[in-house]
Amino acid sequence: MSHFDIRGFSEAAAEICQAGEFLYARGWSPATSRNYRRRIDDRHVAITVSGRHKGRLTQGDIMVVDLDGQPVQSQSRPSAETLLHTVVYRQRPDIGAVLHTHSVKATVLSRLIPAGEAVILEGYEMQKAFAGMTTHESRIEVPVFGNTQDMVALSAEASRWQADNPEAPGYLIQGHGLYTWGRDMEECLRHVEAFEFLFDCELETMRVRR
Amino acid sequence: MSHFDIRGFSEAAAEICQAGEFLYARGWSPATSRNYRRRIDDRHVAITVSGRHKGRLTQGDIMVVDLDGQPVQSQSRPSAETLLHTVVYRQRPDIGAVLHTHSVKATVLSRLIPAGEAVILEGYEMQKAFAGMTTHESRIEVPVFGNTQDMVALSAEASRWQADNPEAPGYLIQGHGLYTWGRDMEECLRHVEAFEFLFDCELETMRVRR
Amino acid sequence: MSHFDIRGFSEAAAEICQAGEFLYARGWSPATSRNYRRRIDDRHVAITVSGRHKGRLTQGDIMVVDLDGQPVQSQSRPSAETLLHTVVYRQRPDIGAVLHTHSVKATVLSRLIPAGEAVILEGYEMQKAFAGMTTHESRIEVPVFGNTQDMVALSAEASRWQADNPEAPGYLIQGHGLYTWGRDMEECLRHVEAFEFLFDCELETMRVRR
Amino acid sequence: MSHFDIRGFSEAAAEICQAGEFLYARGWSPATSRNYRRRIDDRHVAITVSGRHKGRLTQGDIMVVDLDGQPVQSQSRPSAETLLHTVVYRQRPDIGAVLHTHSVKATVLSRLIPAGEAVILEGYEMQKAFAGMTTHESRIEVPVFGNTQDMVALSAEASRWQADNPEAPGYLIQGHGLYTWGRDMEECLRHVEAFEFLFDCELETMRVRR
Repeated sequence: MSHFDIRGFSEAAAEICQAGEFLYARGWSPATSRNYRRRIDDRHVAITVSGRHKGRLTQGDIMVVDLDGQPVQSQSRPSAETLLHTVVYRQRPDIGAVLHTHSVKATVLSRLIPAGEAVILEGYEMQKAFAGMTTHESRIEVPVFGNTQDMVALSAEASRWQADNPEAPGYLIQGHGLYTWGRDMEECLRHVEAFEFLFDCELETMRVRR
Repeated sequence: MSHFDIRGFSEAAAEICQAGEFLYARGWSPATSRNYRRRIDDRHVAITVSGRHKGRLTQGDIMVVDLDGQPVQSQSRPSAETLLHTVVYRQRPDIGAVLHTHSVKATVLSRLIPAGEAVILEGYEMQKAFAGMTTHESRIEVPVFGNTQDMVALSAEASRWQADNPEAPGYLIQGHGLYTWGRDMEECLRHVEAFEFLFDCELETMRVRR
Repeated sequence: MSHFDIRGFSEAAAEICQAGEFLYARGWSPATSRNYRRRIDDRHVAITVSGRHKGRLTQGDIMVVDLDGQPVQSQSRPSAETLLHTVVYRQRPDIGAVLHTHSVKATVLSRLIPAGEAVILEGYEMQKAFAGMTTHESRIEVPVFGNTQDMVALSAEASRWQADNPEAPGYLIQGHGLYTWGRDMEECLRHVEAFEFLFDCELETMRVRR
Repeated sequence: MSHFDIRGFSEAAAEICQAGEFLYARGWSPATSRNYRRRIDDRHVAITVSGRHKGRLTQGDIMVVDLDGQPVQSQSRPSAETLLHTVVYRQRPDIGAVLHTHSVKATVLSRLIPAGEAVILEGYEMQKAFAGMTTHESRIEVPVFGNTQDMVALSAEASRWQADNPEAPGYLIQGHGLYTWGRDMEECLRHVEAFEFLFDCELETMRVRR
C-alpha cells in the first residue's frame, strides 16, 4: 500500500475547500455539481467526495485516490467523473490542480455549439490570463464533447484530444460544464475566472449580434 | 387539541430561518413573496406567518398548522397559500419540506409558457440534482398553472397533477413563482438551486436562439 | 423658527442610512445618484445632503428641510430634486418616506418607453407587494416623465399626475430613475424591491419576445 | 535619485488596495487584468506591480515609478501598460488617480463598436456623475482604440486623442477594457461606477432594440 505525506494532504484539502467557497460564491458550482482535485505527490491526488452538496466544503469532504482513481485510506466513493481528472494528471505531469465547474454560462454555451465543434476565443486581452499566452492575437479552441454517463468513453475522447492539444487550457462537456487545470490551484482558479469571463462575453455578444 | 414536540418546532423554525436567509440573499424571494414549510411530525407543520416582509426571518415569524392548515397554539393567520402546501404533505408522506420562491427568472418563464403547458428540461447534467434522477437523458416536465386568487381551485388543480405525477419535483404558477419540495430542507433547497439554474439556462438560450 | 424633536431626527437619519446601504448593495443607486427622505413630523423632513457619493451614508450626510424645501438648522444645500419630494409630502399627508433610486433596469426601461406614456404592469403576483393591492388582476400604470434640469416644471407635472392618481405607488423619469413612496420606510423599501423585480421581468420579457 | 515622502506612498498604496477590493468585488477586474495608479507627488506615482492575480491587493503589491515609468526604490517590474498611465499624468497635471478596469460589459461593448469609432452616451442623468458635467443634455464620446501589444503605438494614439479632448473622462481599448481618471481616487472610482452603469444600459438597450 502506498503512503502519502499527511501534511501534504492537509494543505491540498485546505486549498480545495477555499477554492470551493470561492467558486460557489460566484454561482459557478451550484448544488452538487462540482469536482475539485489537487495533486499531493506523484502518486496521490486529493479529491472531493461524491454527492456532497453543501456550499461550504470541509476537510471531511475530501478523500485521496491514486492515479488509477482507487481510494487510498478511505471508505468513501470517488465521483464517477474521477476518470476525467486522471486523464489530465497522466498526460500532464506538470499539472497540480483540476477543477470541474458548472456555471449557467458554460452550460448554455456548450448547448448552443454542436458537440464535436469548439468555442473559438480570439481578440480578447483576457486570453493572456491563460498560462503561456502572451498576446490577445492568439486563438483558443475550447472543444465541446457530447455528454454521456459512460465515463470510460468520455475520458477516452478527452484523452485523445489532450494528446493532440497538450497546451490547451480546458474543454466543455455539453449541458454539463467546464474542465480546466493549472500547475497549481492558483493558476487553475485564474483559468476558471478567465473562462467564465470569456463565456459571458461570448454569450452577451451572441445576444446582441444574432 | 393536538400537541407537538417543542424541540421539533424549534429545529424546524431554525431551518426555515436559515433557508429564508439563503433564498433572500440570492434574490429568489424578494419583498413579501415567499412561503416556507417544514414538517414537525405526522400531524404538524411549521410555516412562515403571512405578510412578514423582512429579509431576515426570526423564530417569531414561524407558526404551526395542522395538516388541514388550521393554526395550532397561535393567534397568527396562516398564508392564503397554505392549501397548496397541504396538498403536497397529504399526497407525499415522505416529504418534509416545501418551499415557494418567487424569482425573476421563474416569473418570466412562467409567463412565456401558456398556462396549461409545461417547461421541458432535458439534456442538462444538472437534472441529476433532483431526487431519483440518475442521468441527463431523463426529461422533466414542469407544468405552468394559471394564477388565481382562488386557492381552493388552484390547490385542486395542483392535487390532480400531483396524483398523476407522484415523482415530479415541482411546478410553476403563472406570473407567481415556483413550488418545490424534498424529503428534508437540504434536499428541498437543492431542488430550488437546480430549478433556478435550469430556468436561467432556458431563458438565456431563448434570448440567443429566438 | 420651527423646531423638531432631535430624537425623531436621529431615528429618521438612522433609517435613511440603513436604506442607503440596502439600496447601494443591490446596485440600485450607484455613484451619487440618489435622494432619500423620511418625514420627522408634520413640518419637517430628513433628507440626504446633495452630492455625497459614498455608498455608506452616515448621520452627517443627512439634513432637515421644512415642507417648502428650506434648510432648518443647517448650512448644507438640499438637492435640486427636493421639490419632487415635497410634492409627494404635500399631496399625501399619510406618506412618511420617499426614495429616488437609479438602477440600470429602471433607466433602460424609462428610455424604451416614450416620455408621456407608461409602463403597464399586469398579471404579476408581485403587484400585491404594493400598498392596497390585493390581486394580480389589478393593473398598474407607471408614467414616464421626460427628463429636464428644470425642477419646477418637472415637479408641476408630477404634482398634476399625483392629483389625478392619488393611489399610484411611483413614477419614472426618462433616463433618470424611479420615485416611489410609502407610509413608512419599510413600506417604501418594499415598493422599491417590487418595482425593481417587475422592471427586471419586463425587460427580460422584451428581450425574448421582441 | 529622486525621493518621495514615505507617508504619501503609504496613503496612496492604501487607497489603491481599497479600490482594488471594491472593483474586484463588483466583477469589474477579474483575474490579473487591472492596473491602478495614484499620484504621490509631482514626480512619483504609486502603481500595482505587474502580474499579481490576487483579488485582495496588499501594500506589497504596490511599487513606485517616476513620470517616465521608471521604477524608484524597487526591483519590481512595472506593467507594460505603464505608458498609458503616464500619458494621462503628463497631459493632465490635475489628475491624481488612473484606473484600468476590465469588465464583461466594457469588453463586449468595445468589440461591438468598430475600432476608431466611439460609444456615444447622451440623455442619461448619470452623465452628471462625471466631473464638470451639469446636465443629462451633454454628449459624451468614449473612443474605442484598436488593441495592440505595442504600448508605444497605443500610448501615442491615446496621447493625441487626449490633447484634442482635454475634458474627456475615459476611453476603451478593443477587447481589453476601460481607462478612466479623476482628480483623486474617489472621483476616479465614481467615474468607473458611472461608466459601468452606462455601458450596462447601452448593452441592455441594444439587446432589446436590435
